Amino acid sequence: MPKLWTETIDAHRTAVRGAALDAMAALVDEQGLVSLTMSQIAERAGVGRATLYKYFPDAQAVLTAWHERRLTEHLDRLTAAAEPAEPAVVRLRAALRTFAQIQFHSARHHGSELAVLLHHSEHVDRAQQRLREFVRDLIAEAAQDGNLRDDVAADELAGYCLHALTAAGTVGGQDAVDRLVAVTLAGLEASRPGR
Amino acid sequence: MPKLWTETIDAHRTAVRGAALDAMAALVDEQGLVSLTMSQIAERAGVGRATLYKYFPDAQAVLTAWHERRLTEHLDRLTAAAEPAEPAVVRLRAALRTFAQIQFHSARHHGSELAVLLHHSEHVDRAQQRLREFVRDLIAEAAQDGNLRDDVAADELAGYCLHALTAAGTVGGQDAVDRLVAVTLAGLEASRPGR
Repeated sequence: MPKLWTETIDAHRTAVRGAALDAMAALVDEQGLVSLTMSQIAERAGVGRATLYKYFPDAQAVLTAWHERRLTEHLDRLTAAAEPAEPAVVRLRAALRTFAQIQFHSARHHGSELAVLLHHSEHVDRAQQRLREFVRDLIAEAAQDGNLRDDVAADELAGYCLHALTAAGTVGGQDAVDRLVAVTLAGLEASRPGR
Repeated sequence: MPKLWTETIDAHRTAVRGAALDAMAALVDEQGLVSLTMSQIAERAGVGRATLYKYFPDAQAVLTAWHERRLTEHLDRLTAAAEPAEPAVVRLRAALRTFAQIQFHSARHHGSELAVLLHHSEHVDRAQQRLREFVRDLIAEAAQDGNLRDDVAADELAGYCLHALTAAGTVGGQDAVDRLVAVTLAGLEASRPGR
């Protein structure tokens, strides 16, 4: 096939997939996660049901793909949260703040239902792994700079941070999110002399 | 009915319920949570199927009751973890250590499957509420003693602690659990002068 033709097909595929995922997002916002059908998704996406079935075997597959796209967007926001020129500890603070924000908003958008529906999905494990590695590397770099405690392995501290910040899903407002980030960062500070 | 007779019936009821929950615990340990039947539970408990049905409508109800008993035991362990005569900050440390231990062990015993199966159970919400209040009161008392930060509300700090310590479910061993508790407690310390 000539290159132009392949590109057109690829663009078409991407467009249909994107429309389906956008439709999914809109439907979840309006109706929650329960009992979405392929017909509803196709109608909202403006494609035929038969076309949708060429891309996704069922509504669960659309949900999974939509969630995967969302997690990728979240990771992109996290990694873009800080100026690369800043010291690691500043980039870490920016990343953790962004993570806490995402938790705060996600909990208000079917976070716990999603956790059940997508329980143990491979793409969730993969995204969590990438997130943890990103935070771990920032912590290791900041500890090496002398700006964080170095008596506990960076990977353990990353686990601590990410779990502590999921509390953002339970707090009442933006100020409480900021306080949670400050408290969590205090746990990462170098031990005080004499303790 | 004479009192003695009522007491005998009560004791019998308690015994049957207890046997059913012990059977559930043993079966979950051996086979995991999937597809436990009333027949299996009755056989293991040493009671007839018909008798079991007088106490529980289905296997899910036995699971819920078993889990409720376990959560109550956990709360009892937490509240008993420290000498009442100790200062609040010492009692808090003991309680948080116990909580982290429970997380560490529970994660190895079908923790995430349970979370899905018992998703949004009332008894889970109630137990979490009691736990959070218990930790909140200890934090408030310790802050009043001048042993913890007092710039963030005790309830928010309780949420931070309990979320941070769920990371104990992901760590490799006992030492890592202890380090996690230490890091989490560092987040609760009074801010350093000059910061």
